[in-house]
Amino acid sequence: MKLIRTIRQLLKFQDVLRSSCYLQCFPNFTSYRHFYISTSVDQKWGTNKKHRNVKLNIYFDTMADPKIEEILAPLRANVKEQGDLVRKLKADGAPDLDVKKAVAELKARKKILEDKELSLAPNATFDRAKMEDLLKRRFFYDQSFAIYGGITGQFDFGPMGCAFKSNLLQAWRQFFVLEEQMLEVDCSILTPEPVLKASGHVDRFADLMVKDSKNGECFRLDHLIKAHLEKIAADKKTTAVTKAECEDIVIKLDGMNKDEMAAVVKKFDMKSPLTGNELTEPMEFNLMFATEIGPSGLVKGFLRPETAQGIFVNFKRLLEFNQGKLPFASAQIGLAFRNEISPRSGLIRVREFTMAEIEHFCDPSDKSHWKFDSIRDTELLLYSACNQMDGKAAERTKIGDAVDRKLVANQTLGYFLARIQKFLTKIGVDPARLRFRQHMSNEMAHYACDCWDAEILTSYGWVECVGCADRSAYDLTQHTQATGVRLAAEKKLSEPKIVDVVEAAPNKGTLGKAFKKDAKAITDALANLQINDVEELGQNLEGKGSYELSVGDQKFTLTKDMLSVKRYQKTLHVEEITPSVIEPSFGIGRIMYSVFEHNFKMRENDEQRTYLSLPAVIAPLKCSVLPLSGNAEFVPFVKQLSAELTKVDVSHKVDDSSGSIGRRYARTDEIAIPYGITIDFDTLKEPHSVTLRERDSMTQVRIPMSDVATVVHNLAYSKQEWSDIQSKYPKFEAQESKGV
Amino acid sequence: MKLIRTIRQLLKFQDVLRSSCYLQCFPNFTSYRHFYISTSVDQKWGTNKKHRNVKLNIYFDTMADPKIEEILAPLRANVKEQGDLVRKLKADGAPDLDVKKAVAELKARKKILEDKELSLAPNATFDRAKMEDLLKRRFFYDQSFAIYGGITGQFDFGPMGCAFKSNLLQAWRQFFVLEEQMLEVDCSILTPEPVLKASGHVDRFADLMVKDSKNGECFRLDHLIKAHLEKIAADKKTTAVTKAECEDIVIKLDGMNKDEMAAVVKKFDMKSPLTGNELTEPMEFNLMFATEIGPSGLVKGFLRPETAQGIFVNFKRLLEFNQGKLPFASAQIGLAFRNEISPRSGLIRVREFTMAEIEHFCDPSDKSHWKFDSIRDTELLLYSACNQMDGKAAERTKIGDAVDRKLVANQTLGYFLARIQKFLTKIGVDPARLRFRQHMSNEMAHYACDCWDAEILTSYGWVECVGCADRSAYDLTQHTQATGVRLAAEKKLSEPKIVDVVEAAPNKGTLGKAFKKDAKAITDALANLQINDVEELGQNLEGKGSYELSVGDQKFTLTKDMLSVKRYQKTLHVEEITPSVIEPSFGIGRIMYSVFEHNFKMRENDEQRTYLSLPAVIAPLKCSVLPLSGNAEFVPFVKQLSAELTKVDVSHKVDDSSGSIGRRYARTDEIAIPYGITIDFDTLKEPHSVTLRERDSMTQVRIPMSDVATVVHNLAYSKQEWSDIQSKYPKFEAQESKGV
Repeated sequence: MKLIRTIRQLLKFQDVLRSSCYLQCFPNFTSYRHFYISTSVDQKWGTNKKHRNVKLNIYFDTMADPKIEEILAPLRANVKEQGDLVRKLKADGAPDLDVKKAVAELKARKKILEDKELSLAPNATFDRAKMEDLLKRRFFYDQSFAIYGGITGQFDFGPMGCAFKSNLLQAWRQFFVLEEQMLEVDCSILTPEPVLKASGHVDRFADLMVKDSKNGECFRLDHLIKAHLEKIAADKKTTAVTKAECEDIVIKLDGMNKDEMAAVVKKFDMKSPLTGNELTEPMEFNLMFATEIGPSGLVKGFLRPETAQGIFVNFKRLLEFNQGKLPFASAQIGLAFRNEISPRSGLIRVREFTMAEIEHFCDPSDKSHWKFDSIRDTELLLYSACNQMDGKAAERTKIGDAVDRKLVANQTLGYFLARIQKFLTKIGVDPARLRFRQHMSNEMAHYACDCWDAEILTSYGWVECVGCADRSAYDLTQHTQATGVRLAAEKKLSEPKIVDVVEAAPNKGTLGKAFKKDAKAITDALANLQINDVEELGQNLEGKGSYELSVGDQKFTLTKDMLSVKRYQKTLHVEEITPSVIEPSFGIGRIMYSVFEHNFKMRENDEQRTYLSLPAVIAPLKCSVLPLSGNAEFVPFVKQLSAELTKVDVSHKVDDSSGSIGRRYARTDEIAIPYGITIDFDTLKEPHSVTLRERDSMTQVRIPMSDVATVVHNLAYSKQEWSDIQSKYPKFEAQESKGV
Repeated sequence: MKLIRTIRQLLKFQDVLRSSCYLQCFPNFTSYRHFYISTSVDQKWGTNKKHRNVKLNIYFDTMADPKIEEILAPLRANVKEQGDLVRKLKADGAPDLDVKKAVAELKARKKILEDKELSLAPNATFDRAKMEDLLKRRFFYDQSFAIYGGITGQFDFGPMGCAFKSNLLQAWRQFFVLEEQMLEVDCSILTPEPVLKASGHVDRFADLMVKDSKNGECFRLDHLIKAHLEKIAADKKTTAVTKAECEDIVIKLDGMNKDEMAAVVKKFDMKSPLTGNELTEPMEFNLMFATEIGPSGLVKGFLRPETAQGIFVNFKRLLEFNQGKLPFASAQIGLAFRNEISPRSGLIRVREFTMAEIEHFCDPSDKSHWKFDSIRDTELLLYSACNQMDGKAAERTKIGDAVDRKLVANQTLGYFLARIQKFLTKIGVDPARLRFRQHMSNEMAHYACDCWDAEILTSYGWVECVGCADRSAYDLTQHTQATGVRLAAEKKLSEPKIVDVVEAAPNKGTLGKAFKKDAKAITDALANLQINDVEELGQNLEGKGSYELSVGDQKFTLTKDMLSVKRYQKTLHVEEITPSVIEPSFGIGRIMYSVFEHNFKMRENDEQRTYLSLPAVIAPLKCSVLPLSGNAEFVPFVKQLSAELTKVDVSHKVDDSSGSIGRRYARTDEIAIPYGITIDFDTLKEPHSVTLRERDSMTQVRIPMSDVATVVHNLAYSKQEWSDIQSKYPKFEAQESKGV
C-alpha cells in the first residue's frame, strides 16, 4: 500500500496506478476512509507540463460515501434482520424447510440492496449499445454462423478479438504457469461418461425446464415462472392478495424443487409465453453436450463442462513428474462446453467458452504458501459471507490480516486471491470495480471448505469472473472410488510408525488351478479387501472352511487350501495422504467482456469518437504505421519500418488507405492500437524522423526513425513509460485536430 | 541455395544449417547430384577448436545413390508402364471402369516402389519403442483417461508436451500470422448441420464399415477385407487361382464402391475376425461427432471436422475488416474432431486434434504473390504427379522454376510451399526427410486446381503433415448458394463498362395491398430472378396479363398493375468476383510427432542415454538450474538465478533433487532442455560465476553470474549462437562424465 500526501508524490506513481495503487490518506479527502485512483489520460492536471496528460478518475468505495450510505441504511438493516433470523433458526435446529424459506428471503433482500447500490454507482449510465456497436463493427467478435441465421450463445472472434484473446492467454501463462512453475497440461475435450459420473456432472449438472408441447420450444423453468408472476403482479387488476402471493413465490423460487415448481405452473395455469400452447411437465435437462465416441454407439461421451477433470485423472502422472513431491500446481487453458437452455448477456453466458484453471495440490494438514509473505500486505475488497448476512458492505482488507483471523481459510487460498487481483488489474480491469465475494454456506458445494469469487462490476451488474475454491480432497477421492486407482501422495512421517497388518494371502498355485483365467481378478479382489472383510474371511475359513468372495457380478467359493490370513507388524516411514485441491478457475470470455467495458472510452467533447484504452500488453496490435498521404516517396519508409517492427516482434498494422491522418488515428484508436507512427514530409529529410503518438493522451513526439522500433518495443512490453519518451524527445503538435 | 566448396565455407554456415542449407557442389561428393547436410553436435570435426562441436549428418537423396537406384530401377519401370497405360486409356476415352482398374493397379505398383525405397533408407532401423518409452515416462503425452481404461485416439499432453505444443503454436503465429499480417480468427467448434451440409461434409465425409452382428464391434470395411484376403493368400493350402484373385481384389480395393465390397465380403463369407460372428451389411459411417445444440433437440450440430469453415462463413466480415481489398489471408488455430472408426499410429491418427489453417483469398485471374521474389530461389524436394506416374523419384527444384513451367499452379501456392518448408525446418524437422507430393488427378477433390502435401518421413513412412491446395471458388460458392448471401468481392474494372439491365420493378403499393405479409418475400424473389425469367415474366404480362411466381413452396399470381419490366443501361466501375482460396492446412499433432522422431537421439557409446535435441525456440523449457549438491550455501544463488531468468522471460526448471550432476543433466536432456546452469563451489567465491552447458554438444563454459540470464535469453531466442559463447567465455570441463 502506498501512502501518498502530495500531488507530486501522486504523479510519481503514474506508472503503477493501473496496477491498483490504493491510497489511504489523500489530504483533501480525509473524510472518507477509502478511495481509489485509477488513471486515464487526456485532461490537464496540475501545472507541470510533463504530466499534464494525467487524468485521475477517483472512485470511492460506495460504503464510504455518507449520502449513499444514508439511502442504503434501511436496506442494510433489512438484510441483517433476516440474516440474524437465519442464524437463529440454524442455531435452534429449526426444520429444514423453515431454514430454506428464511434463506430465500435473505437472498431476496440482498438482491434489493445490491440493485440499489448499483443504481447509485457512477457507472450506471454506461452506454452498452455504443460499445457493442464498436465491437461488432470492428469485428472484435460477433455471433457465429450469422449468414446461416446464427446460433445463440456462440461467438466468433475476429482478428482483433482473437489477438486480444491470444495476448491475454499468453499473459496468463506468463503470470501463472511460468512465474510459478506450474505444470501445464492440455487434455481431451471428449470425455467418456464414467469420468463425469464420478465427478458428479452426469447426475447433478442440470437445470429444470419445460417445453412447448406443440413446437418443442424450451424454457428454463425458474425464468418462466418469474416472468409470469412478475407480469401478474404488475397487472393493475390483480388483487393485493394474489400480488403478495406472486412476490412471495418469486422470492422463494431459488430454493424450490421440481415438484414445488410444477405445482406453481399448474396453479397459475402457465402456458408458453410465445405461442400460448400447453407446457410439458418440468424435466431435468443436463447441461452437457452428449455424443458418441467411436462408431459402435457403445461409448457414450460428453464435451467436458470444465477443464479441471483432465488434471484430476492425470494426477498420478503429474505427481510423478514432480518427483512425488507436494505441493505443486497444475494448470490448463482450454475450451469447455455447456448446453445452456437460453443463453444471453453476450459473452457472459455462452455455450462454448475458454477457461483457464489451476489445481493446486497440497497436504490437507498444511495449506501454507511459501510465497505468502510477498503478498501479505496486498489489500483486497473482501465481501465476506458474514457481511453479506449482516447487510454490510465489502471491506478493504489486507490479505495477511484476513488469513490471520481465518476470514480466508488458508494462506494458499489467500495467495491466489492476491495474485488474481494483480493479474486482473494488469490486463485492464479497473481495480475500483473488482471485489472478492465469499460463498455463503448455502451456495457452497458440500465438499468445499471455502470459496471466493472474483466479481467484476459491469453494466450487467457484478459478474463472477474467477472462482477460487478450496475443494478439499473431493475430486481425487471420487476418481479413486470410481477406478480403484489410488490417487494419493506419500508423506514422510516425522518418526517411523509400527502398525499391525492383517491381509488375505492367496496360494497362487491352487487358486490358479481352481479358477484358471479368473484367478487374477480374485487375487486383485483379495488385495483390495477392507480390514473387517479380512477378519470375516478368517472367521469363515476357521468355521465353515470356506469363504464366498464377490468379484463384480460373480461369486467364488474359496477354500482353506487356496489362501490364509496373515498377521504381522510393519514399520512405516511414510503415510499415504489424499491431497487437498485449491482451485482458481478463470472464465476468459467474461474477463474479456469486463475488460472491454472498463476500457471503452469517449473523447472529451466528441461522443462519437469512441476508443478502447486496452493496456499495451494485451492490445491486439501494438503499433500502427501511417504514411501521411499516398505520396510514392513514403512507400520505402513504410516498408523499412514494417520490417524493423517485425524484427523486434512488434505486431503492427500499416494503414495506407486514403483518409485524413486524424480519421486514420480514430480508426486505430477504435481497435485499441496504443502507439502510432506517422511518416510525413519531414521524414524524407535527413536525418530521417517520424512522429510517434500515444493513444490515450493523443500526445505526440518527433523521434529519429532509427530509434522508433526499439522505443515502441520497450513501450509495448512495459520496459519504458510514455512519460520517459516525452521527456527524451521533442513534442510534436499538429495534424490530429486538423484531420478529424 | 548456397554453393559451398571448402570446409571453411561450410563451417561458416553452421548457423543456417538447421534451416535447410542445401549444398550442390561439395568437392568430395561430386558423383552425386544432390545431397544434404544437417547438423547435430558431439563429434570432433576439423582442427579449429572453435568449431569442433560440429557434427555433420550427410543425407543423400535416395535417387542419387547408384546402388539403390539399381535395385529400384525395375520397380520404377513397372510404375511407368502402368502410368503410361492410364494416360493412354484416358486419352482414348476408355470406359470409366477400365480407367479405374488401371489406376488401382498403378497405385499398387507405386506402393511397392515406395515400400522398397523406405526399406533401403538409412532411417529404417529407428527404435520407436525406445522413443515412446521416453515420451511416456517423462509425460510428454499419454493416452487420455488411462485410469478409466483409456480411449483410443485421444491423448493428453503433459507439462513438457503442452509447453512444446504451446511454443510451436506461438512460433506458427509469429511466422505466419504476424510476419504476413494475416487476419487470425477464433471460431466456434459446435457447428449447425446446414453449414456442413453446404461444405459437403454431411454427405461425403464418411468411411464404410461393418459391425459384428452380436456385440456391435465395428470394423473399417477396406481394412477388414484386406486383412482377410491377405490371410487367404498367405495360406499354403490356397490354390494359385484363388491367390491371384485375392491379390487382384486387394489391389483394386481402393477404387471399389459399397456394393462391390459387399459382394467380396459375401463371396469369401467373411466373419468378425475377433469373434467369428456374422457381420452386418456395409454401412456408411459419417466421421463427424454429432450432438444437439440447445435443449429442444431441434438443432442438430456437429463438432467441426476442420477449422476452415469458420473462416468461410465469416468471409464478409473479414473482407470488410480488410477494407474490401483482395488479396488477404485469414488464419485459425484450433481443435477439430473426427470420429475415426479405428484410430491408431499414436498422434498421427486421432479423434481430437489441433489444426492451424490459412485461407488466402485472391482474385481468380491473378494468383501472383507480392513476396514471391523473396523465395524464388528456395529449393524444394518436389514429387510431382507426373513423376509419380512415371515411377521417377522426387526432384529438388527451385520453386521459381517450378512455377515458371507451371508444375506448381501459381505463385501464391509456390510461395506457401517455400514458407511451409522454412517453418518446418525451423522447428526441428529434418530437411532431408521432407518432401512435397502433388496429388494425382484421381486423388484431388473435384473443385481443386492443384494440391501439394508436405510429407515428412517417419518410422510410419511418409506422413502427410501439411496440405496446400488451391480450392478455387468452391467453398464461398457453396455457402453463397446455401444462404443466399453473396460471398464475393468487388474488383475495380480497368475501364468502366456499360451493360444492359433488365429487371422486374414491383409496384409496392399494389403488391402490398394484394399480398400483405407475403409482399416482402415476393419483392425479394423478384429481385433474385435470372435474366431469362424476367424476359419470360415480361412476355407473360404482355400476353396473358399475369405471371405465376414461385416463392419457396408457394405460388403467387402477379398481374400487370403490380409490376413492370424495366430496361436500361448502367455504367459499371467494378465487377463482382468470387475469390479463389489457397489453403495451407497444418496438422499440429503429426508435425509434433515428426519433430519428436527427428530429434530423438542417443549418446555415442551409451544407447541407454537418450535425449531430445529440440531447437531452443520450441523446447518446453529453455534452461535448468542445478545446484551441485544440497549445500545450504547454494540456495540463495538458486533463488536469485531463478528470479533473474523469470525477469527475462526464460522458462526454466530448478532441479535441486539429490543425484549426481551427471544424472540430473541426463534427466534434463530427456526433456529437451537446451541449456543448463550449474551452481558449484566456485560460485560462492567473488566474482560469482556459474557453469553453462549446451545439451547437444555437452560442452560447458564458465560464465559470470551477472551475465548468464541475458546470455541464456539470447541463446534461447536465437540472438546468439553457442559458438559465440564458447569463444567469449573460458571452457569448463569436469563433472559430466563423473556423474553418470
